[in-house]
Amino acid sequence: MLRWFLPREEDFFGFFERHAALTVQGAREMRRLVQGGQDIPAAATRIKELEHQADVITHDCVERLHKTFITPLDRDDIHQLITRMDDVMDYIEAAAFSVMLYDLTEMKAPARALADVLVRSSEAMAVAVGGLNNLKKADGILQACIEVNRLENEGDDILRAALAELFRGATDPLLVLKWKEVYEALENATDRCEDVANVIEGLVLEHA
Amino acid sequence: MLRWFLPREEDFFGFFERHAALTVQGAREMRRLVQGGQDIPAAATRIKELEHQADVITHDCVERLHKTFITPLDRDDIHQLITRMDDVMDYIEAAAFSVMLYDLTEMKAPARALADVLVRSSEAMAVAVGGLNNLKKADGILQACIEVNRLENEGDDILRAALAELFRGATDPLLVLKWKEVYEALENATDRCEDVANVIEGLVLEHA
Amino acid sequence: MLRWFLPREEDFFGFFERHAALTVQGAREMRRLVQGGQDIPAAATRIKELEHQADVITHDCVERLHKTFITPLDRDDIHQLITRMDDVMDYIEAAAFSVMLYDLTEMKAPARALADVLVRSSEAMAVAVGGLNNLKKADGILQACIEVNRLENEGDDILRAALAELFRGATDPLLVLKWKEVYEALENATDRCEDVANVIEGLVLEHA
Repeated sequence: MLRWFLPREEDFFGFFERHAALTVQGAREMRRLVQGGQDIPAAATRIKELEHQADVITHDCVERLHKTFITPLDRDDIHQLITRMDDVMDYIEAAAFSVMLYDLTEMKAPARALADVLVRSSEAMAVAVGGLNNLKKADGILQACIEVNRLENEGDDILRAALAELFRGATDPLLVLKWKEVYEALENATDRCEDVANVIEGLVLEHA
Repeated sequence: MLRWFLPREEDFFGFFERHAALTVQGAREMRRLVQGGQDIPAAATRIKELEHQADVITHDCVERLHKTFITPLDRDDIHQLITRMDDVMDYIEAAAFSVMLYDLTEMKAPARALADVLVRSSEAMAVAVGGLNNLKKADGILQACIEVNRLENEGDDILRAALAELFRGATDPLLVLKWKEVYEALENATDRCEDVANVIEGLVLEHA
Repeated sequence: MLRWFLPREEDFFGFFERHAALTVQGAREMRRLVQGGQDIPAAATRIKELEHQADVITHDCVERLHKTFITPLDRDDIHQLITRMDDVMDYIEAAAFSVMLYDLTEMKAPARALADVLVRSSEAMAVAVGGLNNLKKADGILQACIEVNRLENEGDDILRAALAELFRGATDPLLVLKWKEVYEALENATDRCEDVANVIEGLVLEHA
């Protein structure tokens, strides 16, 4: 395997930051989608495109790992981090495609609330990711991680209330099933932001 | 960041043990809830309170990690362990809230059976956790881990039979969906006990 | 704990390989099951038997870890790998039991497509696993991991289209729920192959 002569350590942080920025963009696009009045297939296609760009970054990052002698964090940690970050985007894409494929055209308030939590959670995650190149400045990173954790709890509460409301007085079980899946995909995306925050918190601890 | 002058190593084991004790309490409260004849909102509120106490312990444990020079286990392992332990409690709370929010008042036998497995699984997990301060005495810990694994299989079998029974002759798809979610949350809680047991098994291996 | 005098390092790779071979067998059995015209309880029983054999290997592997001084990979990595490999088989068994317990006798095309992706994914996983005893020959291993990742995306696309088709024009919500569960178990099994591939990719990186 060809190895680079002069590995540029900082590139790994660049991968993380570009990946997180795409996730924030995807979350915002998703929030617009559930606000209603959108061309849903067009929005889902844009999200798929963002997801694809994130995939390419993940792939490039892993490939770079194989070509670099000295890495700024443990190889395994870099690998785990970028892999987990990818999961967030996958759930955003899943939520968008569920809305599209199930022909859900009338949007629901809890979907908007969940997408809003997701946007804020991905933004806080991006802040934590942005701090990785200076793990000694732990306070800002940890504060962002705490915010991601808090938002995950908020998302959980919204999901519970949303499901209770969805079932109460429902007449069409298939429609319940469809929205349940969209709500859960949105909440899962927020969950995965928390997984990323947990990995970052672990890294801060290791390098404290 | 302020660091403690004399870190007391044993405190981390105290966090684990108190956390595990709360989980056992939560599981037992859940078992009572599905035995029927309970004030369900009151029971769910008690479980939420236990979950909150466990959250505080998790938070304190992670904060202590940041203030302690020397830790009795790898920082990252402590972090992973307490995080995974927290997942068990989250699913117990989720199960309780599903019962409450879906207005399920007539309890079902498989829910009782699953909650019973969960209680025994959380108890075995607590035994494994209680052995962490002496990883050299591996036999007792590993036996508890094997018991957690066995119970997870038992829970799996109960869940399968329960779902088959639920669908067979069902007339109300929404009621099926609701109970399916409760059953799965209970089984997921048992699953997460197994995740904790797997982390502990890994720790025993590392320190053998 | 009794320790072996002369640990045979290569045995661990034997555990992995035998386990992966059982998973491939299980996936193929599952593919036959959803092709229709099978005695479903007999096929599910055969899959349960394969799952049990894989469980025994996992158990023996972990026990051997406790009795061996020098291991060819980190103890913790061996433990994580065999545990993740076990998850694949669990989902294959879950899919088979869902088909049986829900009395699904008329098979559906997407189940066949998903089972086919699963077979190919487990085969690629087995190739990656087979390369573990020579981590320096990274290229073949990584190519197999990339194939597992590609197949996971393929499975995802099939699942999405399958769910959309399932809901479209459905009249029996319970039947939708049943097939949804089978499809998702099959796709989850493919997902878990990707988890195994990710662990292996991490190992290649560590030992590069």
